[in-house]
Amino acid sequence: MSGLPKVVEHVLTEPDLTYQFGGRYPIAEVLPGQVLRTSTEDCFSGAVRTVDDLPSKVCQQFNPVTGPFRVPGAEPGDTLALHFMEIRPARDWGMSATFPHFGALTGTHTTAMLHPALPEIVWQYDIDTTAGMIRYRARRGDYTVELPLDPMLGTVGVAPAADEVRSSIVPDVHGGNLDTPELRAGTSLYLGVNVPGAMFSLGDGHARQGQGEVCGVGVETAMHVTVAVDVIKGVPTPCPRIETDYQLISIGAARPLEDAFRISQHDLVTWTAQLTGLDPLDAYQLVSQAGRAAPGNVCDPNYTMHAAIDTAVLHGATGYGGVHQRLRDLARGLLATELFGTSPGTMSGTMR
Amino acid sequence: MSGLPKVVEHVLTEPDLTYQFGGRYPIAEVLPGQVLRTSTEDCFSGAVRTVDDLPSKVCQQFNPVTGPFRVPGAEPGDTLALHFMEIRPARDWGMSATFPHFGALTGTHTTAMLHPALPEIVWQYDIDTTAGMIRYRARRGDYTVELPLDPMLGTVGVAPAADEVRSSIVPDVHGGNLDTPELRAGTSLYLGVNVPGAMFSLGDGHARQGQGEVCGVGVETAMHVTVAVDVIKGVPTPCPRIETDYQLISIGAARPLEDAFRISQHDLVTWTAQLTGLDPLDAYQLVSQAGRAAPGNVCDPNYTMHAAIDTAVLHGATGYGGVHQRLRDLARGLLATELFGTSPGTMSGTMR
Amino acid sequence: MSGLPKVVEHVLTEPDLTYQFGGRYPIAEVLPGQVLRTSTEDCFSGAVRTVDDLPSKVCQQFNPVTGPFRVPGAEPGDTLALHFMEIRPARDWGMSATFPHFGALTGTHTTAMLHPALPEIVWQYDIDTTAGMIRYRARRGDYTVELPLDPMLGTVGVAPAADEVRSSIVPDVHGGNLDTPELRAGTSLYLGVNVPGAMFSLGDGHARQGQGEVCGVGVETAMHVTVAVDVIKGVPTPCPRIETDYQLISIGAARPLEDAFRISQHDLVTWTAQLTGLDPLDAYQLVSQAGRAAPGNVCDPNYTMHAAIDTAVLHGATGYGGVHQRLRDLARGLLATELFGTSPGTMSGTMR
Amino acid sequence: MSGLPKVVEHVLTEPDLTYQFGGRYPIAEVLPGQVLRTSTEDCFSGAVRTVDDLPSKVCQQFNPVTGPFRVPGAEPGDTLALHFMEIRPARDWGMSATFPHFGALTGTHTTAMLHPALPEIVWQYDIDTTAGMIRYRARRGDYTVELPLDPMLGTVGVAPAADEVRSSIVPDVHGGNLDTPELRAGTSLYLGVNVPGAMFSLGDGHARQGQGEVCGVGVETAMHVTVAVDVIKGVPTPCPRIETDYQLISIGAARPLEDAFRISQHDLVTWTAQLTGLDPLDAYQLVSQAGRAAPGNVCDPNYTMHAAIDTAVLHGATGYGGVHQRLRDLARGLLATELFGTSPGTMSGTMR
Repeated sequence: MSGLPKVVEHVLTEPDLTYQFGGRYPIAEVLPGQVLRTSTEDCFSGAVRTVDDLPSKVCQQFNPVTGPFRVPGAEPGDTLALHFMEIRPARDWGMSATFPHFGALTGTHTTAMLHPALPEIVWQYDIDTTAGMIRYRARRGDYTVELPLDPMLGTVGVAPAADEVRSSIVPDVHGGNLDTPELRAGTSLYLGVNVPGAMFSLGDGHARQGQGEVCGVGVETAMHVTVAVDVIKGVPTPCPRIETDYQLISIGAARPLEDAFRISQHDLVTWTAQLTGLDPLDAYQLVSQAGRAAPGNVCDPNYTMHAAIDTAVLHGATGYGGVHQRLRDLARGLLATELFGTSPGTMSGTMR
Repeated sequence: MSGLPKVVEHVLTEPDLTYQFGGRYPIAEVLPGQVLRTSTEDCFSGAVRTVDDLPSKVCQQFNPVTGPFRVPGAEPGDTLALHFMEIRPARDWGMSATFPHFGALTGTHTTAMLHPALPEIVWQYDIDTTAGMIRYRARRGDYTVELPLDPMLGTVGVAPAADEVRSSIVPDVHGGNLDTPELRAGTSLYLGVNVPGAMFSLGDGHARQGQGEVCGVGVETAMHVTVAVDVIKGVPTPCPRIETDYQLISIGAARPLEDAFRISQHDLVTWTAQLTGLDPLDAYQLVSQAGRAAPGNVCDPNYTMHAAIDTAVLHGATGYGGVHQRLRDLARGLLATELFGTSPGTMSGTMR
Repeated sequence: MSGLPKVVEHVLTEPDLTYQFGGRYPIAEVLPGQVLRTSTEDCFSGAVRTVDDLPSKVCQQFNPVTGPFRVPGAEPGDTLALHFMEIRPARDWGMSATFPHFGALTGTHTTAMLHPALPEIVWQYDIDTTAGMIRYRARRGDYTVELPLDPMLGTVGVAPAADEVRSSIVPDVHGGNLDTPELRAGTSLYLGVNVPGAMFSLGDGHARQGQGEVCGVGVETAMHVTVAVDVIKGVPTPCPRIETDYQLISIGAARPLEDAFRISQHDLVTWTAQLTGLDPLDAYQLVSQAGRAAPGNVCDPNYTMHAAIDTAVLHGATGYGGVHQRLRDLARGLLATELFGTSPGTMSGTMR
Repeated sequence: MSGLPKVVEHVLTEPDLTYQFGGRYPIAEVLPGQVLRTSTEDCFSGAVRTVDDLPSKVCQQFNPVTGPFRVPGAEPGDTLALHFMEIRPARDWGMSATFPHFGALTGTHTTAMLHPALPEIVWQYDIDTTAGMIRYRARRGDYTVELPLDPMLGTVGVAPAADEVRSSIVPDVHGGNLDTPELRAGTSLYLGVNVPGAMFSLGDGHARQGQGEVCGVGVETAMHVTVAVDVIKGVPTPCPRIETDYQLISIGAARPLEDAFRISQHDLVTWTAQLTGLDPLDAYQLVSQAGRAAPGNVCDPNYTMHAAIDTAVLHGATGYGGVHQRLRDLARGLLATELFGTSPGTMSGTMR
């Protein structure tokens, strides 16, 4: 067993759901180097179960997250690394909706207009984890179509800086409601630590979502989540970053959307310069030609965009001294042990 | 020859370059169903040839386009279809630069700031069309890396509505400086016709560019362009659209960036509803989960974003009654004839 | 008569209305030092005369301007000074309206939304030039109230740079549809000259408008306009500026609105530094504490904001070597001559 | 004494300063109908006392507020009314500064750019409360000028909704760092109550500031504040509102700036319709012609704009059943008693 991380099992119960980042006592501890297994509820707290359950009627609060988890040893100025080994739907159905005065193609409380709200409508999707597909069904007419299952967590973050407590609806430098499809299994998320213990929470699983999440709601479902946790001491992280096996990603959260773009590109340019030794303007040029960019959400209190570059373009440079590769390898070792050896636990439950 | 389009060869000369859309006499005519072969200069009019040629010193104007070409029979309310059969670098080098007060990570004339301009620096790339690669070289230090060649046209448009004449730097509903990497060979671009003859022009080739074109300049190079032209009578198009063999794309051009996002998503929702018979809110939901989105540029007078959906999600629905497939098949027939039969002309020249 | 300007009378006829800046032949000439007397139609071309005349039904085009007028001797790099001696309603009624998908509190073609348009409604105002009041009447219910008459021109501009031709709906560095209540009689407007002869046009009179013009339409009416014209040789002007007897004003036109703010404040800081000899950061500080700012419109293709500072704060410094004071004094001399001497003409007509 | 409010004296000490809204225990209680007398520190916590004290060096935190004060009986859904009887500089000097990467004409952490920060410079102003003037002094050169003293509080707010805790730097619907020059003595501020007791705090006095606060910092100084407190039961308030003797003001806080404009105008239209019985579109029209608008700040995490209308245009309608007039009259009564009778306390101290 030496070398394999210890698994912390956390069975989700109602009191473990919170609606803020910051200002809460931890529900459990996960040490650097350990793996956490837990579950998340959907953004409706599971209250929307049929197309007749209007969110504005059946929900009191939105977007619960599981947590916070305290990471002993994490201090302000460090970076928390969360490597997502598994993000697996816990139900065979997911829900989406239009919500009054929420979304990119409607007047909202900030883009205030004199129009009445668009109709509030709920859609139910089948989730087939075996086939790796979900099924869309129109509400008017009999149009249906399968879309690829692409599970992700919409909301992962730490306690904010400056003693702030932020609603779980908000994305910002502490993470939170990033709502980007890039946050899928196999990736590592890096978040700057603002308070002792980091105090991270996660939730808001989507069976999939489009880039920009234009109506404001993904295919919301409960998730089983397995995440390896580590802390990079003494290295700050200015905005949420993601690393995959082949790319580096910076995430900006702001309004207007060009500022989310600017933050993400600025960070990717700076990170690229740091990892390669390039002059900042040389890095600016390289990202300008080799970079990718896309919106995560254009509906939340801050919009998000990500900037990405292939590590191949950086001659294989990786972030934070290779922590992503190390966590990924540990995860594979753990998975192999579970499949062929003494499994430290099971995740076989289906949430109702 | 029956069934194959007639090829219009246009050899580019200096007077065929213009810097506006609208307000110019046509330089040639292309009939619906014909194929145009022409060339485009780079955004520096070819004046930046070494890293010591600073654009602000050696250029008087920027972003020349070849045209306008008149399409007899095109009338306001119709749609012009341009199917790009070939976009091929005409030089084995391309240039990029930072330009004073231009780009997303610098103060500009609109995002006005008290900072002095960032340094003006030029980068030269090798273009290897055989290998399908370009080579980046840092200006400070000896870092080099190969990036995939991905040729595109930054600027294609028609004469604007309302008797306007717009600088070729500007993207808007008439097309223009869209600066999106989606405008590559194999795609069809749809533009609403505003004046008799449509009066389209094209230019601003990039050997490649990143999404968002963050520094404001792609890998600029002259191009050989082959484009099949058609007109869809009586069908208007509200914003630039692209169709490929597997996806539909709508392009929004506006500031702030969320409005470019809104325009593109709104058009894709509307287009999806029209092609599938879905209710608009059902289409809104489908695009929300199945859609892709990315910025083209976040530096021009209007920013651009595109919204895309796979035609598979629409059960194979295609735009404008299949014009893209028809033009693509014609193009392949023409190509086969050229390769194995009596070629109507050659494109072998290299611009100097 | 020496010292008094010669008056150019221009009687407005239908063909003198245009809907663009740039690209038109001049309808008349006005020499530097001369005074022009002409008239302007309202933004509906006079076609909306009762509350039952819906603009979307009765209008083909919007926002006609009278012009262009050529100013011999004005060259690119010069500044055109227009001192408005009189802006006087030519009718005793004015019209306003909500227009489909236009205005700040509705989805528009750029802030694209899925809402249907708000209702199109027309309001008619009485204009009482003697009392200096206009009368608002609600359409539903019998609420009426008097508001101060504050006549202004919404649209004054010159031919744009770069051979562009812009719709008269658009405000930008060439002026155009600035839609600011600051452009009233007694002020001097400064515009950078882009083409020989400057080619200025004016129109879009409002009996008054609120700051920001939130519904998108002022109290539109035809105007009699008297304007003294001058050219400041060899002095460029980067954005529209206004001078009054006690303040300097810079106008920014852009989206998002913070960029219009930035342009206007940046120009006022720069102008302040130039007139006082202050270091730019000292001027930045002074404008930060002494400056005023307000939106003109938040509905046009570019939004406008102005930045203003009292000349008293600048120890009496005035723009362009005192041209405003000189034109104002000439205007007073002319007025005195008309009242007590040999009037060069009358403006007594009422447009129908 | 019947009819006159009881005065609560609160002597400011260091522990009474906080840097957040929400999440703190009250430092004192003020009953509805009582008057609070307290003091506020400047945004530098008094640490910037000469032009050589750079804020980035001498300050750990920014923008302390005095509070929170608990108002027994205030419940979520109620409105807190704060009538400012006095906002008086507590020092004869004030400080302003450019701060690295903060302000409207510089790259910031959200409008991220590759420029180095502008120079950090401090300006010191004399404050002469007797003359009602402050004195600006350039840092380079000997330019000085007097500006009118116009004391205001930049930051007044209540505990936010949704259990959030927000930095005192942030303006939003809970109030906070509104940074509007409209918040001067003689006005009543209305804030929606989110938590039992409202928990209001106040601070960030400016001897004056320009509209938009372009450099990001006003003329910061400590203040003596006297404020009458009341609660309007059962009446919610959607965004901060101000009432003066002659106008109603709504304040929007958002990015981009047009959304702050939209929020403020939307609220003023809605409020106007409610107070007059006008149809919402009739109110939209009336505000469009009679309304005023200006930015408060274009530098904070949310920008602010206000929308204002004269109560005369509303035929004298006032907000919340006349609470402003009632508080103002009580304030005058109290003042008269103090001047000629038994003063309940003195405000004569000068802070050092």
